[in-house]
Amino acid sequence: MKLIKNAAGRLVPTEVNGLQQIPFKGVNKYKPTGLKAKPKIKTCIDYPTDGNKVVKDLKTALKKAGLKDGMTISTHHHLRNGDAVTNMLFDVVKEMGIKNIRWFPSASFPVHSHLIKYLEDGTIHHIEGSMNGPLGKFTTEGKMKGIGVLRSHGGRYQSIQDGEVHIDIAVIAAPTADPFGNSTGDRGKSACGLIGFALGDSEYADKVIVVTDNLVPFPCVPWQIQGNNVDYVVEVETLGDPAKIVSGTTEVTKSPDRLLIAEYVAQFLDEAGIMKNGFSFQAGAGGTTLAFAVYLKEKMKKKNVKARFIRGGSTKYLVQMLEEGLTDYILDGQTFDLEGVRSMRENAGHVNTSPFTSYNFHGKGNFASIVDAAVLGATEVDVNFNANVVTHSDGYLLHGIGGWQNCLYSKCTILAIPTFRDRIPVIVDEVTTLCGPGELIDVIATERGLCINPKRKDLLKVMKNSSIPIIDIKELKKGIDIICGGAPAKPKVNKEKVVAIIKWVDGTVLDSVFQVEK
Amino acid sequence: MKLIKNAAGRLVPTEVNGLQQIPFKGVNKYKPTGLKAKPKIKTCIDYPTDGNKVVKDLKTALKKAGLKDGMTISTHHHLRNGDAVTNMLFDVVKEMGIKNIRWFPSASFPVHSHLIKYLEDGTIHHIEGSMNGPLGKFTTEGKMKGIGVLRSHGGRYQSIQDGEVHIDIAVIAAPTADPFGNSTGDRGKSACGLIGFALGDSEYADKVIVVTDNLVPFPCVPWQIQGNNVDYVVEVETLGDPAKIVSGTTEVTKSPDRLLIAEYVAQFLDEAGIMKNGFSFQAGAGGTTLAFAVYLKEKMKKKNVKARFIRGGSTKYLVQMLEEGLTDYILDGQTFDLEGVRSMRENAGHVNTSPFTSYNFHGKGNFASIVDAAVLGATEVDVNFNANVVTHSDGYLLHGIGGWQNCLYSKCTILAIPTFRDRIPVIVDEVTTLCGPGELIDVIATERGLCINPKRKDLLKVMKNSSIPIIDIKELKKGIDIICGGAPAKPKVNKEKVVAIIKWVDGTVLDSVFQVEK
Repeated sequence: MKLIKNAAGRLVPTEVNGLQQIPFKGVNKYKPTGLKAKPKIKTCIDYPTDGNKVVKDLKTALKKAGLKDGMTISTHHHLRNGDAVTNMLFDVVKEMGIKNIRWFPSASFPVHSHLIKYLEDGTIHHIEGSMNGPLGKFTTEGKMKGIGVLRSHGGRYQSIQDGEVHIDIAVIAAPTADPFGNSTGDRGKSACGLIGFALGDSEYADKVIVVTDNLVPFPCVPWQIQGNNVDYVVEVETLGDPAKIVSGTTEVTKSPDRLLIAEYVAQFLDEAGIMKNGFSFQAGAGGTTLAFAVYLKEKMKKKNVKARFIRGGSTKYLVQMLEEGLTDYILDGQTFDLEGVRSMRENAGHVNTSPFTSYNFHGKGNFASIVDAAVLGATEVDVNFNANVVTHSDGYLLHGIGGWQNCLYSKCTILAIPTFRDRIPVIVDEVTTLCGPGELIDVIATERGLCINPKRKDLLKVMKNSSIPIIDIKELKKGIDIICGGAPAKPKVNKEKVVAIIKWVDGTVLDSVFQVEK
Repeated sequence: MKLIKNAAGRLVPTEVNGLQQIPFKGVNKYKPTGLKAKPKIKTCIDYPTDGNKVVKDLKTALKKAGLKDGMTISTHHHLRNGDAVTNMLFDVVKEMGIKNIRWFPSASFPVHSHLIKYLEDGTIHHIEGSMNGPLGKFTTEGKMKGIGVLRSHGGRYQSIQDGEVHIDIAVIAAPTADPFGNSTGDRGKSACGLIGFALGDSEYADKVIVVTDNLVPFPCVPWQIQGNNVDYVVEVETLGDPAKIVSGTTEVTKSPDRLLIAEYVAQFLDEAGIMKNGFSFQAGAGGTTLAFAVYLKEKMKKKNVKARFIRGGSTKYLVQMLEEGLTDYILDGQTFDLEGVRSMRENAGHVNTSPFTSYNFHGKGNFASIVDAAVLGATEVDVNFNANVVTHSDGYLLHGIGGWQNCLYSKCTILAIPTFRDRIPVIVDEVTTLCGPGELIDVIATERGLCINPKRKDLLKVMKNSSIPIIDIKELKKGIDIICGGAPAKPKVNKEKVVAIIKWVDGTVLDSVFQVEK
């Protein structure tokens, strides 16, 4: 395997799974010149005039769809760790004796450890998609036949749109659908809020199969996925375990350190003048970012400030802000708890978005760069503000990228992280895996204070007299290393063996994950 | 110009405006084999990161969009006869000294007679789009430089999607928009309800310009047109005359004959067993079809029947049915009056559709064939149920196709027409222009009774004992000819000179309109 150094100084392969790759050129340096993917023109002649596309079962649908060895099958991850559909799907693929599938999920979860046997027996050749937990571990240990490809939500849409990944068959788990294939995630016993991660799949895949456990008469309204893009509809008993699809409830952190980080971030938004009428922010569903939202809400109420929009993943905390009039809109990409799902269904101001609207870098702009502040996590940050979100410092690939890379384009990106975890420093000289170039990261918020990227002189100036400690990141690192007894040990990896690559939002290769030697 | 006889026996050109054409092959006979249009891949690098795409004026936007001689500019017709944007647009095009534009509107109206001077001076080369009134007359008299191309709403989407028509610059009049280009038609002083006719334009045009007289802060919700497809936003004083954009109110016919036709159609739907719980229908905004809706509503209430959905063009009559619980949904393509616009904005059950969802024949099915009954008009019908909707029997092209061809695919298509107008028979031996093949037309409803297509033996059987006269269409024609003093005079046309063609829903050429000799 030939590796070259890309513009970020990282070693990346020039060819992955038989396909030529473009190495990362730098932020905003690579301009595509080609044409979008061009799906085959279909005709109504080939589809039932009464609109009824229901077939007996998934096997029938896969057969009709012409499933063959070596094809690409895509799935989405809105059912998260409650997903039964993907496992069922590959049970059928295995039963049909099909081999060497490229599985293209938007992400995978611990529940998908069921598929390890299919990775081992050659049913699945490799995974292109974020791998949370067991499949990531399996991959890092060099056990997958092909090379994993990790993309952000926006990068996944980009890769489909640009024809980089051609999906032969998309399987879309839909909490509610009609026989024509119109589908929504905001209702039904397996409701997950929305199913926008499957949008690109529905638009560009050769064949699209909708699987639902709540078939309603045409029309299914809203139609988050349009039946006009769907070939077959399959009814099943259940899409999975509702309790694991969305949390009954999401909760803020109880850790005093994390609460302090959250408070600092909220205070920073206020003091830096970001929190003002008409502003916008995005915060994830982690304990710290939830706590941040709670603190920010109090500040907004106190100062009588109203946001124009909040970007989800939504939770009950964001829903409360919408319903209390603290924001005009939630622009949501996924719902993390039952209140998010309810609000999605009930509030006209809780708006369904997709990786196309929010994150696709190869569009005429996207929402991410319009957001005033994004509060994100990271597994590691280096002293040049470069960050890692997929591997731990032991080299193991255990987390997906999600919308993280895309959100870095916000006007002010804040990584809210503890300085160490389990006595292992989080701030390092060089990240194990580069996921986000430092020039896009403005602030590191820790329990010890804020590190502001030196290029953000404006923020350094406005925060000069803040009660929050403003710390030089290199100084901070030194102190943490002393507390933890030194920098993290370098993982023992095989630098000849790339097990996965990290794509940048423009489809270029930003970094490699190497096989860990045990 | 070489003309050949197509499968419907009509003379059609093999080449139109320099492009090879496929003659009509018969209903459901032509299967496309190609790939969809493939727009250039764009990148966020080329768009403002703050999402603000507002430019000074339309001229600036057209210059930035690279307007050149011979390009194709598209517009939509949701502003109907109140549209000031298209006229303003071509004033600017003229001012810029640009020539030979192919104008690709979804339809044109009398207000656009302003453009005749630009057709005469070579600013506009020809029109591809339905021509209502003056521009149709101009075209029929052979005064347009190129050949007009008329398509249905679905056919227009198909032609864009399939790459048959490449739009260089789309100009989208938006009653409300944000600086990113997200746009909606359901609010603002020029509210027209929805703007779905511009969907394909926004998806496939090289450059997309949104023109609005109500610029709101990001995000404009709902976004019927997605800002991610938009290049420039232009703010103007006014989009046009609100009173002509939508009627203050739509009214049913007062003509006793038309009322009788309407009553027959409602009675037919009841007696034929179509009007039952969960059924669906589509009816236009003409006086007769409005009256039909009123009659049908009474019958539904009496029999306690609820529809699953009604297809708009919506009017206050349909809105009443929705709000009184007589239907679960209105699936709307355009709003014809203020009540329609209000309902679109307020009722979650009043759903925004587009030519893609409803009519595109080159998709994986569409909504039109799912509809139980469609009640339409026609200018002429022949004794084999073939129908005309664009020309009068004097040969003049005066009406657009709209969604008419697409709606013929409903499970039961009823043409509700008087047997004569101004003493000119409407039922003829051969239609002046063929727009709809008779095999798709099930019932002709006239003030004298119903003609049922002999191929619908089921309907003939179920209606055998109806109180509505069931008449053989040839017999009916004979009687009408006697009343009117004979069949309509054949128009004097130049059979060598095609002034416009009528496309079928699959992009093939169904018929020609010839130059009328005065």
